[in-house]
Amino acid sequence: MEPIRNFDQLTSHLKTLNKRKRIAVVCANDPNTEYAIARALDEGIAEFLMIGDSAILEKYPTLKKYPEYVQTLHIEDKDEAAREAVRIVREGGADILMKGIINTDNLLHAILDKEKGLLPKGKILTHLAVMQIPTYDKLLFFSDAAVIPRPTLQQRIEMIWYAIHTCRHFGIEQPRIALIHCTEKVSAKFPHSLDYVNIVELAEAGEFGNVIIDGPLDVKTSCEKTSGDIKGIVSPINGEADVLIFPNIESGNAFYKAVSLFSHADMAGLLQGPICPVVLPSRSDSGLSKYYSIAMACLTSCGSETANDISQLSNCKS
Amino acid sequence: MEPIRNFDQLTSHLKTLNKRKRIAVVCANDPNTEYAIARALDEGIAEFLMIGDSAILEKYPTLKKYPEYVQTLHIEDKDEAAREAVRIVREGGADILMKGIINTDNLLHAILDKEKGLLPKGKILTHLAVMQIPTYDKLLFFSDAAVIPRPTLQQRIEMIWYAIHTCRHFGIEQPRIALIHCTEKVSAKFPHSLDYVNIVELAEAGEFGNVIIDGPLDVKTSCEKTSGDIKGIVSPINGEADVLIFPNIESGNAFYKAVSLFSHADMAGLLQGPICPVVLPSRSDSGLSKYYSIAMACLTSCGSETANDISQLSNCKS
Repeated sequence: MEPIRNFDQLTSHLKTLNKRKRIAVVCANDPNTEYAIARALDEGIAEFLMIGDSAILEKYPTLKKYPEYVQTLHIEDKDEAAREAVRIVREGGADILMKGIINTDNLLHAILDKEKGLLPKGKILTHLAVMQIPTYDKLLFFSDAAVIPRPTLQQRIEMIWYAIHTCRHFGIEQPRIALIHCTEKVSAKFPHSLDYVNIVELAEAGEFGNVIIDGPLDVKTSCEKTSGDIKGIVSPINGEADVLIFPNIESGNAFYKAVSLFSHADMAGLLQGPICPVVLPSRSDSGLSKYYSIAMACLTSCGSETANDISQLSNCKS
Repeated sequence: MEPIRNFDQLTSHLKTLNKRKRIAVVCANDPNTEYAIARALDEGIAEFLMIGDSAILEKYPTLKKYPEYVQTLHIEDKDEAAREAVRIVREGGADILMKGIINTDNLLHAILDKEKGLLPKGKILTHLAVMQIPTYDKLLFFSDAAVIPRPTLQQRIEMIWYAIHTCRHFGIEQPRIALIHCTEKVSAKFPHSLDYVNIVELAEAGEFGNVIIDGPLDVKTSCEKTSGDIKGIVSPINGEADVLIFPNIESGNAFYKAVSLFSHADMAGLLQGPICPVVLPSRSDSGLSKYYSIAMACLTSCGSETANDISQLSNCKS
């Protein structure tokens, strides 16, 4: 498989698979979500189970274009809708979970329920996003701009595994993963830079398989070879990072917001850790960004054929 | 004075002042520094005292174009050159200090010397930068991407003072200062968001004069009104921030590197706190960026007429 280098190629690739993934959407109730769903229906990559107040769903005419691919399940109470969506995913009735206009905390509550939720024991919940930046010649993955404030070493290792797994779905044989800091210097003043040393050693020992991991590196040196050359930095990343692992949520979030605003980048993002991809867009995400997130979920979903076996699915990531 | 909205206007404004500021440069020894100095000489905004190995300085022919505005002082030892430059600034022999190819730590050592240095007692050392982003319609100041890893409340307040003072030099009557976080929510999980509440209260009580300060806000909401509208956020910043105060050095640095790389932004930056502006470029800064930093220093320098009175100069910031 050729690597998928932009979102158009992502859609094209999904169309060649000729298989609609089934997405349970909780409380769809905004024009951007409607746009994303309508686009996914048009492209033929997904079918939808709309869980929520059907009086609201009635208002979206585009959803009626494909009656065979859109089912609705009327549940007025939002928490109940969230629990039902999670139950359906657990039982194999959907491949992907998507948030509409429900408070994130309420949906997470259902996802994280120890008995009836979607996060296998021992798995960590984190966020992986991917940007198409007009001034970068391939997709750029990054984590974590949304969930874990200060990742521990173990959490960072998990974040890297999720990123590797997702890169494989995108056809990237040997992902280049940069561990981000302000400089290339390791210092006890910045404990994450010490974690990075551990992670690079693990990678060099082959623990992560066929990947290139290096750091600490700054964003510029990770993504532009000449910046490293000027500084005299020799890194196997070579200014061609596929993935940026940020030291903390503030830096990941500042990166994401700045690049999406000032570089007009498009973004997709998914929660990692649950047994199925969870599309959890933020309120200000564009319709296009929500559609790309659906497409990313369709690509990385393990498929409904195994969705009724949670233990199997939880292994599907590694 | 009309606000200066881009770097061309900065140069034009400095030319109308028709006064060359005197810059002591320690160990100039790279083509980008030479470009910056030659440009400042051409524009007529500065004169230079080059301190370092004169055999190296001899190699730069452009510096010979203006013999009346370039003096050299031969000192081979870099630490000694740094100490001498600091002494000259203290005694009023220069308005601005600039780093060439000397290790930052070595120059800082001379600047921070308690007896003979440039940082008045009680002042904090921090970094303030300004970017010209092609997709933003004015200059955007930010702090601190380079010096203080985790600012305390007091340090944040000082950072804001430096930013206000610099904005005034740029003709911005009422600077809009956004206190950056991932969201607009205040949470004890993120102590800086609690600091922000304090700072906003101080600003509302008029402690900072004629400014607008709001936060926590994310980068997007700070710099784009529609992002706030979608989220239902009403902020006096109104998507028109002049200044972003970052929660920590990782987020400031990720912002700076990402925007300069992916949005092709030009940047200028200065150390704040010392009795005179200190131009301390990073190795990978372009010649243009080094020139803009010189221009920013010329604008914000208090002028050599008072440079021999340290106590007076240290008040010049507030």
